[in-house]
Amino acid sequence: MDKAVVGVIGAGRIGKLHMNNLKRNPDVRLKMVSDLYADHLHEWFQTSGVEEITTNYEDILEDEEINTIFICSPTSTHADLIKKAADKKKHIFCEKPISFSEDETLEAYERVKQAGVIFQIGFNRRFDKNFSEMRSRVSDQKIGDMHILKITSRDPNPPHPDYIQSSGGLFMDMSIHDFDMSRYLSGSEIVEVSARGANLVDPAIGEKGDIDTAVITLTFENGALGVIDNSREAVYGYDQRIEVFGNSGALVADNETSTNLKYYHNQTVEADLPLHFFLERYNDSFIVETNQFIDCILGGREASVSFKDGIMAQRIAQACQESLDTQRPVKVNREIG
Amino acid sequence: MDKAVVGVIGAGRIGKLHMNNLKRNPDVRLKMVSDLYADHLHEWFQTSGVEEITTNYEDILEDEEINTIFICSPTSTHADLIKKAADKKKHIFCEKPISFSEDETLEAYERVKQAGVIFQIGFNRRFDKNFSEMRSRVSDQKIGDMHILKITSRDPNPPHPDYIQSSGGLFMDMSIHDFDMSRYLSGSEIVEVSARGANLVDPAIGEKGDIDTAVITLTFENGALGVIDNSREAVYGYDQRIEVFGNSGALVADNETSTNLKYYHNQTVEADLPLHFFLERYNDSFIVETNQFIDCILGGREASVSFKDGIMAQRIAQACQESLDTQRPVKVNREIG
Amino acid sequence: MDKAVVGVIGAGRIGKLHMNNLKRNPDVRLKMVSDLYADHLHEWFQTSGVEEITTNYEDILEDEEINTIFICSPTSTHADLIKKAADKKKHIFCEKPISFSEDETLEAYERVKQAGVIFQIGFNRRFDKNFSEMRSRVSDQKIGDMHILKITSRDPNPPHPDYIQSSGGLFMDMSIHDFDMSRYLSGSEIVEVSARGANLVDPAIGEKGDIDTAVITLTFENGALGVIDNSREAVYGYDQRIEVFGNSGALVADNETSTNLKYYHNQTVEADLPLHFFLERYNDSFIVETNQFIDCILGGREASVSFKDGIMAQRIAQACQESLDTQRPVKVNREIG
Amino acid sequence: MDKAVVGVIGAGRIGKLHMNNLKRNPDVRLKMVSDLYADHLHEWFQTSGVEEITTNYEDILEDEEINTIFICSPTSTHADLIKKAADKKKHIFCEKPISFSEDETLEAYERVKQAGVIFQIGFNRRFDKNFSEMRSRVSDQKIGDMHILKITSRDPNPPHPDYIQSSGGLFMDMSIHDFDMSRYLSGSEIVEVSARGANLVDPAIGEKGDIDTAVITLTFENGALGVIDNSREAVYGYDQRIEVFGNSGALVADNETSTNLKYYHNQTVEADLPLHFFLERYNDSFIVETNQFIDCILGGREASVSFKDGIMAQRIAQACQESLDTQRPVKVNREIG
Repeated sequence: MDKAVVGVIGAGRIGKLHMNNLKRNPDVRLKMVSDLYADHLHEWFQTSGVEEITTNYEDILEDEEINTIFICSPTSTHADLIKKAADKKKHIFCEKPISFSEDETLEAYERVKQAGVIFQIGFNRRFDKNFSEMRSRVSDQKIGDMHILKITSRDPNPPHPDYIQSSGGLFMDMSIHDFDMSRYLSGSEIVEVSARGANLVDPAIGEKGDIDTAVITLTFENGALGVIDNSREAVYGYDQRIEVFGNSGALVADNETSTNLKYYHNQTVEADLPLHFFLERYNDSFIVETNQFIDCILGGREASVSFKDGIMAQRIAQACQESLDTQRPVKVNREIG
Repeated sequence: MDKAVVGVIGAGRIGKLHMNNLKRNPDVRLKMVSDLYADHLHEWFQTSGVEEITTNYEDILEDEEINTIFICSPTSTHADLIKKAADKKKHIFCEKPISFSEDETLEAYERVKQAGVIFQIGFNRRFDKNFSEMRSRVSDQKIGDMHILKITSRDPNPPHPDYIQSSGGLFMDMSIHDFDMSRYLSGSEIVEVSARGANLVDPAIGEKGDIDTAVITLTFENGALGVIDNSREAVYGYDQRIEVFGNSGALVADNETSTNLKYYHNQTVEADLPLHFFLERYNDSFIVETNQFIDCILGGREASVSFKDGIMAQRIAQACQESLDTQRPVKVNREIG
Repeated sequence: MDKAVVGVIGAGRIGKLHMNNLKRNPDVRLKMVSDLYADHLHEWFQTSGVEEITTNYEDILEDEEINTIFICSPTSTHADLIKKAADKKKHIFCEKPISFSEDETLEAYERVKQAGVIFQIGFNRRFDKNFSEMRSRVSDQKIGDMHILKITSRDPNPPHPDYIQSSGGLFMDMSIHDFDMSRYLSGSEIVEVSARGANLVDPAIGEKGDIDTAVITLTFENGALGVIDNSREAVYGYDQRIEVFGNSGALVADNETSTNLKYYHNQTVEADLPLHFFLERYNDSFIVETNQFIDCILGGREASVSFKDGIMAQRIAQACQESLDTQRPVKVNREIG
Repeated sequence: MDKAVVGVIGAGRIGKLHMNNLKRNPDVRLKMVSDLYADHLHEWFQTSGVEEITTNYEDILEDEEINTIFICSPTSTHADLIKKAADKKKHIFCEKPISFSEDETLEAYERVKQAGVIFQIGFNRRFDKNFSEMRSRVSDQKIGDMHILKITSRDPNPPHPDYIQSSGGLFMDMSIHDFDMSRYLSGSEIVEVSARGANLVDPAIGEKGDIDTAVITLTFENGALGVIDNSREAVYGYDQRIEVFGNSGALVADNETSTNLKYYHNQTVEADLPLHFFLERYNDSFIVETNQFIDCILGGREASVSFKDGIMAQRIAQACQESLDTQRPVKVNREIG
C-alpha cells in the first residue's frame, strides 16, 4: 500500500479536525466523508479537501478503494462500526471511548484481531510534545521509580446538560484521557481506583445523574499512587498539568499559552491564560497522532495506541463510576481475551 | 500583664527554634528551659538567651513568675503537661499534635477551658506569607466558591526508622500540618477522608508498620473536594505547594528558593532547588507564630490557632489511619465537648 | 491573479526553508528554482515540491507564467536581481539585507516603485506570535508612551570566519533584524545610534575585521531610548528576548523552548534551553511571513514589510558601523527619495 | 574592642533604617544620634533604641566612648564628616556617594588612610542574596569569561524635583549603585563609559537640568561590555534585574516579590508586582551590610566595600555626566593616590 485512502464517518467537531489534518498529509487520499446531516455541510465541504460526501456510512464501507476508516461518530455507534470496518479489512482509527459496554468492546476487539487490521484509538494527548517528552524521560529513569503521579485536567466550560447522557458521564467522557495518560506515563497498569465526585459547577448536570468535579485516586501495579482531579469548568481556560514524582526526581508539565509575554503595570503582572480548549491546546498532537497512524498503515506496523489501550481506559472509567456509586475502592480487571 | 515570662519544656530542635525566636521578642523574658538531657546542653545554653536550665520540668510549672509555657517535648507528654500547666493558670503554646488519643486530648481541652488560659497549637504554616495571603484572598472570594483544594507536601529525607513508632505515623506526624492547612485555607470543616498509602521510600518504615507515601482525598462540609499527596522523601528538597480552585479562579503557591537566579549553560537552564526543610522554609512563619502568640497573651486575646484546631487535625489524622486500614472512606466527627 | 506562480533564486538554507513553506500554501504554484549548484541538489529536488530546477536564474526571470520571485541568493546579488525582477513586472520577496550599498539599494527601490510591483523584505521576526502581540499591545497603548526598548539577540554559534567578509559584518548580518524590530515595536524611527563592539568570541572574526559582541544604543524620534546587545555565541542556544518599557507599564517577551517541562532532581531544577537557532525559533514566523506575502500579492495590497523598512534597517546598520569606527554617536538619515 | 559603640549622624530615612538594624545587633551599643531636626524626632526616639539624641554632630565626634560613626547626612556633608571622624580615630560607615567632588573625596581618602580606621561605603546591594550568589558563581567561572553585563535599575516613583539639585543628578544619585554592582559582579574595572539620557518622566526634572531616563554603555578592563538602563519611574514597582553573560553561560537575577502566588481568573494570570522600593527590596541586604561592617570593626579587618569602591563609583558617575554633556565616550581614571 503506498497511499492511505481514507473514509471518515462523522463530520462533527472532531471529524472535521481530523479531515483538516489528513488533507495536509501527502500520503493520504481523503476520499469520502459520511454524516447524517451531510445536507447542512455543503459550505464546509467545498474547502474540506474531501472528494465525496454522503449521508450513508455504508457507502464508505462498501467503497473498495478506501482502505482506512476514521470513526468520528457518537460513541454509541463505535463498536458496531469497528466490527463492520474490520470485516471489510479496513484499517481503523476510532475516537475514544470504544463503547460504554465491556461486552461490546471485547466483541469489537475480537473482530479486529481476526481481521488483522491496524487499529488506533484516539488518545491524542500521548502525542503532545510535553507529555511525550515526559514519558521518554520517565522511561529513561530520570525520576527513578515512580512514586506519585498527579494529573490536573479541567475543561474551560461545562457541556450542555443535554450532552451529559450521551457522554457516558464525566469519567468516560473526560477523565478517560487522564486514565490513558496515567498508563502511558507510568508504563504500569492501574490495579485499583477510588473516586470521589461532586456536583458543584452546574446543578443541571447533577439532575442528569452526573458529577462535574472529581478527585480520583489510582493504585498502579508497580506500587505507585496516582491522583487525578477533574472539573467541568475552569474559568481561566483548559487546565492540563501533569506531574510525576519518583525516588530520584520529579517532572512537571505546565499549561501552554498563546504567547509568553509578561505585562507589568501598576496593578499586577499579567501572563497569558492557558490555551482555551482542546482544539487550541492539542492542535499539534492531533496532527502527530494522525500522521503516525498513517505511517503505521503504510509501513504495516501496529499502531502505538492499541485497542487494548482503549479497553483499559474504558474499564478504569467504569471502575471509577462503581467506586463513586459504592463509595469503595474498586479493582480493575487487567485480563483481556 | 506587660511581659510574657516564658518557660520552655523540651530543648530539642523545635524547642531551640522557639527559644531563638523568643529571645528576640522584646515583650518576652525567657526565664527557664527544662530538658532531660540538660547536662549535654551546656554549650548551647551559654548563648541561648535563657536565664536558667533544669532537668525537671516541674521547676517551670512551680515557678511563680513564669506565666507562659512552651511545650516542645515528645507528643506522648503533651496532654499531661497541658493539664498541669492549665492547672497552674499558665498560658500554653503546644507543639502539634496534642496527643495520639482522642480521650487524652479532650481531657486536656476541658482543663484548658476550665482554667481560662490562652492556648495555641503549633500550626506554624498558617503564618507563612504565601499561605496567609492565599487564605486572605480565598476569604475575599477571589476564587469564588472553592471546588478543589490540592496540597503537595513532601519531606526531603525520611526520618530514622526508630522515630516512626513515637511519631504516631505519617498522618499524625506529617500530614497533620496539611489537614490544618486544608481547614485553614478552605474555612470549612472536613467531613470525610479516604486515604491510600504505600511503603515505597524505605522498607524499614514499612517494617515499623507505617507508610511513607500517601494520597488522601478530603470532602469538605461546603461540598468541595480536596487532595493531599505526601512523601517522606523528595530528593530535590522540601516540596510544599498548595492550590485552591474555585468557580471564579484559582490560586497557586509554589515552593520557595534560596535565590531566584537562573543559570543558562550548554546543557540546561538551572534554577534553585526548593529550600531544604522546614527550618529554612518556614523560618519566618515560626517567628510570626511566636510573636502573634505573645501579642495575644499580652493583649488577653484568644490565639488564632485554637485548641479546637488541634483536636480537628488529630481526628482527621486518625480517620485517615482508619481509612487506610479498612480501605474505606471514614467520616470525621466535628462535635466537640 | 488567482495563484502566485513562484520562482525562487537560491536554494541555500533560507531558500529551501521558503520553498518548504510555499509548497504547503494552496494559493502557490512553485514553478522553478535556480541555484548555481543545482547539480548537487538532485536528491532534495525530488521531494521539494518545485516543478523545475535550473542553474540559470534568467530562466526564472524570462518565464512568463512566473509572477513572483523569491530572492534567496547572497546579498551581493540582491539589488541587481530586484531591478531585473521589477523590470519584468514580477512581485518580489527579498531576503535581508537589500544590499551593502546605499546607492545600490536606492536604485533598486526606484525601479521597484516605477514597476509598481509588490515588494516584501524578509524581516520574519515581525510575524512571530510573541513579538506581533507585543507590537499590538504597544499600539493599544498598554505601556503608554515608550521610554526604553531592550533587545537581547544572541546566536548560538559563531559563523565560520570565511563567512564574515560576505556577511557585511555583525551589524548588517545579525543586528539588522534587531534594528527592524526596534522600528516595528516602537512605531518610531531611529534618529541616532551609538555602538560599542568587541571581539571576544573568536579571534578569527577579529582578524577578518569584524566584531562578535556588541552593545548598541538607539535614540528614537519619539524621544525613547533603546539598547540592543548582540553576541555571536550563546552556548545555551539562540537568545531572543525583547522588553518594552513605558510610562504606564512594561511588556517582556522571553525565549521559546521545546517543552515546558521542569525537572527536579537532587542537584538542581532544570528547564529546557531556548530553541537552538532561527530555523527552530522562528519556524512559525517564516510560515506566516510567506503566507501574508502571498495574500498581499493575490489581493493586490502592499506588503506589511516594505522596501523602506529594508532601506532604514540597512542605514542603521551602516550608522552603527560608522559609530563603532569613529567612537561617536551617528545620526541616521530618514529621508528617502 | 569587644563592642561597637555607635554614633549616627543624620536621622533621615536611611539613618533610621541603619539604627533599626544596629539596635538588633548584640555587638552594638547604639549610643547617640544627631540630627538638625532632633526636636521633631521625639516620638521616634522613644522606641529607637538609641541612648541619646542631639542636634549637634560634634557631640558624637567628641564622645570618647563612641568608636564608630555612621554618616547618614546629606552628601554635601560627607567628606567633611569623614575627615573629622578619621581625625578622631573613629571607624566610619558612610552612605554613598562620598561627595560630588573628586578632590574632596581624595582628601577624605587620604585622611582615612592616615588615621588607619576601618571604612565602609554604603553599597548595600552587594549584600543581597541574589547578587552575592551571582558574584560568587561568576568568581567560580560558572559563566566562563564575562562578555556582557546587563543591569536594569528603575525606581518606582520620581523624587520631588526639589531633591534633584542636591542629589547630584541621576548618575550620581541612582546609577551609582549600578556602577558599583558592575564592578562587583565583573571583578573588573570600568575603563570607559558612554551615556545617553532623556527627560521623559517629569518635565520638572528636566527643568532642574537633570535626566530621568538613561542608557549607559560600559567597557570593562577585561574587554567585556556592559549596559545599564535607568528610569526614575516604573509604575509597576522597583525594577532591579541583573544579567551576566559569558562564554560558557549566563546568570539572570529577577525581581523579588512579596509572595509567589499565581492567581488565575477569567481575564489573565496575575503574579505579584516587584517589591515596591529599596526599603522592601533590600531590607535584608541592609542588615547583612551593617552586621558585616560591625564584624570587621570588632575583628580589626578591612571592610569588604572599601573607600576605593566609593571613589570609583563616583568617578564613573562623573564620566557618565561628561559623556552625556559631550555626546562622546569618556575614559575613566583608575589611578588612585
